[in-house]
Amino acid sequence: MPPLSPTATVSVSSSSLSFFLLSSFDSSKKLQLSFCPSPSSATSTTSLTDSISLAKPNSPIRRLMMTSAVSIEKETVISERPHTFLRETDGEDDGSVRSRFQRMIMEVQESVCGALEALDGAGKFKEDAWTRPGGGGGISRVLQDGAVFEKAGVNISVVYGVMPPEAYRAATASAADQPGPVPFFAAGVSSVLHPKNPFAPTLHFNYRYFETDAPKDAPGAPRQWWFGGGTDLTPAYIFEEDVKHFHSIQKRACDKFDPSFYPRFKKWCDDYFYIKHRGERRGLGGIFFDDLNDYDQEMLLSFATECANSVVPAYIPILEKRKDTPFNEGHKAWQQLRRGRYVEFNLVYDRGTTFGLKTGGRIESILVSLPLTARWEYDHKPEEGSEEWKLLDACMNPKEWV
Amino acid sequence: MPPLSPTATVSVSSSSLSFFLLSSFDSSKKLQLSFCPSPSSATSTTSLTDSISLAKPNSPIRRLMMTSAVSIEKETVISERPHTFLRETDGEDDGSVRSRFQRMIMEVQESVCGALEALDGAGKFKEDAWTRPGGGGGISRVLQDGAVFEKAGVNISVVYGVMPPEAYRAATASAADQPGPVPFFAAGVSSVLHPKNPFAPTLHFNYRYFETDAPKDAPGAPRQWWFGGGTDLTPAYIFEEDVKHFHSIQKRACDKFDPSFYPRFKKWCDDYFYIKHRGERRGLGGIFFDDLNDYDQEMLLSFATECANSVVPAYIPILEKRKDTPFNEGHKAWQQLRRGRYVEFNLVYDRGTTFGLKTGGRIESILVSLPLTARWEYDHKPEEGSEEWKLLDACMNPKEWV
Repeated sequence: MPPLSPTATVSVSSSSLSFFLLSSFDSSKKLQLSFCPSPSSATSTTSLTDSISLAKPNSPIRRLMMTSAVSIEKETVISERPHTFLRETDGEDDGSVRSRFQRMIMEVQESVCGALEALDGAGKFKEDAWTRPGGGGGISRVLQDGAVFEKAGVNISVVYGVMPPEAYRAATASAADQPGPVPFFAAGVSSVLHPKNPFAPTLHFNYRYFETDAPKDAPGAPRQWWFGGGTDLTPAYIFEEDVKHFHSIQKRACDKFDPSFYPRFKKWCDDYFYIKHRGERRGLGGIFFDDLNDYDQEMLLSFATECANSVVPAYIPILEKRKDTPFNEGHKAWQQLRRGRYVEFNLVYDRGTTFGLKTGGRIESILVSLPLTARWEYDHKPEEGSEEWKLLDACMNPKEWV
Repeated sequence: MPPLSPTATVSVSSSSLSFFLLSSFDSSKKLQLSFCPSPSSATSTTSLTDSISLAKPNSPIRRLMMTSAVSIEKETVISERPHTFLRETDGEDDGSVRSRFQRMIMEVQESVCGALEALDGAGKFKEDAWTRPGGGGGISRVLQDGAVFEKAGVNISVVYGVMPPEAYRAATASAADQPGPVPFFAAGVSSVLHPKNPFAPTLHFNYRYFETDAPKDAPGAPRQWWFGGGTDLTPAYIFEEDVKHFHSIQKRACDKFDPSFYPRFKKWCDDYFYIKHRGERRGLGGIFFDDLNDYDQEMLLSFATECANSVVPAYIPILEKRKDTPFNEGHKAWQQLRRGRYVEFNLVYDRGTTFGLKTGGRIESILVSLPLTARWEYDHKPEEGSEEWKLLDACMNPKEWV
């Protein structure tokens, strides 16, 4: 994905180190990790190798981050959701990208949860919120065992973290001045929605923003920033009109900004959600992008906002059509097997989940992406030509839907 | 564990590299991986970083293997189980440890499957067998949806692999003679048994043997060899008499050989089956050991055999008592949540599974260790003092049972 985990706990940025780790296995490169304590560390501080982040693969920041680590503070549960997770010094209505991105993800959480509750009719979202002493925090919203949804999680989080000075020194190509750790900001919304009906598809979306602070001694110096995210659909059965509708909404959102976005991010999505040991994708894709900073920043903020706002029109009409479709035990068993694949992808491959689990994030927020129930049958093979086989074939051989 | 995966696919040895990888994340060491093609590579050959293996942590072999890799050939499905997987040059009745270990694991597969079928009454094991062109192979036996067992897998495998010459040169501290790759042999039996009744515990066991070939130019030179394995119990509810019975059988097997074995391997087991992100063990432990070679080789072969032969007396009496215990939906849901933890451990932490999945082993054999069904509820917390809470407490705070 990255799914709920990075956003919900150590945020967007946690996804990247694990991605690097996995890449390094594949590419037989050297790997060096170092851990550094948080400069604002209290007894509750959790040290995290974090935030190799959304930096472009070849950016100086990314290359530096690969050899170092950051740390963020442990969260504190709070009883009411706050108005903002931004530090006071960041302001809230100052028109900064971090402030506007936070507002966007809060509004998206609100609107998506509203649409899902309206559709479900019975289930209500339960909310858990937390802050961190030095700024940042998150809100998990989970609807479990509703009329339509087996489990639906919509999380947002804001993280203030710090990169070690080595990374900063290398990034600025200045080994002499030895500045302190470089602060960064990361925020995201992340969601996985698992309906009960085997003909109603699972949906995942995640939009995130990463930014380093300006150096203290050069407040006007440019900041590093990146956008990432995506929305993808995971049905157990293919209704071609549903998949076409879903992809056409993604394409429409992309085309408003750049005609190259949809084909590029559609392929990126197919490549990312790949269960390598099965030779299958997790589902039928959508869009996925990461480390995006080579376009105008305002344009990318608008693009991420457009994508996040496209979740409801892309998904709700499909659910309305499929939520009450009659099904039998065989359909349910197949859905459960595909849920097993979802678990395999998230626990084995997903950057955010795998790394989040190893670094002590908020486990319940990380694993809310897992389905309520899943199934593994030994050596299960759908009959060739069956509806189950068609889904599997489309997961093995990604198609162009629009 | 390692569970079914290493034994069933790339064998015992696959477990070790992934273990090293994980350790290196934790300890911030440098990591270098290199891949080398199999010297006997055919078009069907799969390149594997393999066999960091059962070598002692500080052995020269282990240190060398950490910086290199081996490869083994891809398997070929066969229609009938062969009499032996040993190469002809290894003989079969020659009294070698590899030959006697193979005989032992074949007999254990036979006796355990026989006892399980007799207990189940309805389910029958399905058998899949494969060989590899250059020698070695495996047999998976799976009983699914029986009267007592939801899913039971008992696998054996024999692997002939090759270590790259760098490893050999470094091991022999002789950089001048540049010998070819160093062949190794690995064999194991591995099993996970998931019963249906929530009061009947899951069992896992795995016993394995690893040996390098004698160098060609010095056939009398000593070979490197190691034993590994263990048996552990994962109930959803604690019946103290069951857990005591299980551990007492493990202790009895250990005590026949060395009074230090049980306490040492019991702790090793508690440490290994640890779901770090939960702060819980997967279950109530048993015994686990790895890289064992600092005892007499004959003694350790007898010890591994004794442990494997203790599976039936340790487990079957418990199943006989619990397989028909009446239960309600709440009991079943709790069992399913614990199955979810089993999935988390196996997919996230288990050395054999995680590495096996990344290196292209026989997926169905690797993942037969997963339960038929599993469940994840958001933020589930058993009521303090309840039977569910007692199990969780014992998983968080390992106890002495005998």
